[in-house]
Amino acid sequence: MTWHKTTLEISTPGKGLYDITKTVHAQLQGWGVREGMCFLFIQHTSASLVMSENWDPTARADLGTFMERLVPEGESWYTHDLEGADDATSHIRTMLTDTSLTIPVDDGNLSLGTWQGIYVFEHRSRPHARKVLMRVLQVT
Amino acid sequence: MTWHKTTLEISTPGKGLYDITKTVHAQLQGWGVREGMCFLFIQHTSASLVMSENWDPTARADLGTFMERLVPEGESWYTHDLEGADDATSHIRTMLTDTSLTIPVDDGNLSLGTWQGIYVFEHRSRPHARKVLMRVLQVT
Amino acid sequence: MTWHKTTLEISTPGKGLYDITKTVHAQLQGWGVREGMCFLFIQHTSASLVMSENWDPTARADLGTFMERLVPEGESWYTHDLEGADDATSHIRTMLTDTSLTIPVDDGNLSLGTWQGIYVFEHRSRPHARKVLMRVLQVT
Repeated sequence: MTWHKTTLEISTPGKGLYDITKTVHAQLQGWGVREGMCFLFIQHTSASLVMSENWDPTARADLGTFMERLVPEGESWYTHDLEGADDATSHIRTMLTDTSLTIPVDDGNLSLGTWQGIYVFEHRSRPHARKVLMRVLQVT
Repeated sequence: MTWHKTTLEISTPGKGLYDITKTVHAQLQGWGVREGMCFLFIQHTSASLVMSENWDPTARADLGTFMERLVPEGESWYTHDLEGADDATSHIRTMLTDTSLTIPVDDGNLSLGTWQGIYVFEHRSRPHARKVLMRVLQVT
Repeated sequence: MTWHKTTLEISTPGKGLYDITKTVHAQLQGWGVREGMCFLFIQHTSASLVMSENWDPTARADLGTFMERLVPEGESWYTHDLEGADDATSHIRTMLTDTSLTIPVDDGNLSLGTWQGIYVFEHRSRPHARKVLMRVLQVT
């Protein structure tokens, strides 16, 4: 078994879901991994990882709208607002989604379902540079 | 260290939580795994994985009811409805739960707590055939 | 590659988020792990794991308040209340957060972002003794 690692640098222009599936896949191919397990970990508390529908952009739009409604900015009870109106909301939205994902690799590919894509979910309004740690345990 | 893999085929008759703990456990025993880590990954964006209470069926009933209330069908603001009223809701409910789970294995068993079970959470109204990828890193 | 394992015993005095970052880190150092992957798994359905902001206590306070509002105790539609008013709510809150986390290890440290901490999120009102299984795949 072999261990591979890198850090993916993802630029996010503001709130939304950003597809990183191709970036992860390209890295796997560069390493020549045929089979194993891929571990993703985002090093932030105001952006997260989600698996979601990769075909129809309206699916992602609805995820974003849902979060705006479920965790709206400007609630009077928020106490954590040092960095602005999207401060408490970003941490709450991160808690409700994922910081780490584990995805099988087979036949040199991520073993995703037909409609699955890997997304960085940016919860901040302003542009950010996000880091996603990628680790792969290569079996063959 | 040894690598094992299979795909669990789970039939879901409609919305609800379906216990797959025994299926996962039987597979572990078939392989003779004593110790290691079990990785589960569901290849869908409208069904998900959750760990939940395995004793009282009312616990699962409440999880289902909660989701129906938190993410109700028929909201006027949904834009993703190509596949019906449970389309946007299924993706949102998947986002709020899990696509991947990692569970330790010890003494030939999943190291679950007394009340923990592993469930496929089906978010679609109609019956589906779901695939859960199971990977095991066997240490001994 | 080497496998390490232990069980972290975490005492929780009641609802809230409890930082276990130092406990996990101390264990890593005790084993002398330089690089690999750390797997955490909480053996409960009424307490969960979350990655969150580690600097400002108000961030955690807002996570707790959010959960109290999103999943309030005493809803008339709960059917699972054998163990009290925090019974159904605890399982729902666990479902919305995490039971397992996977965190890379590099240079002898958890590869956390600057503001990330690892927390046990206790959903029960009364004190509990919680078990978090810690497994480490050591690469170097």
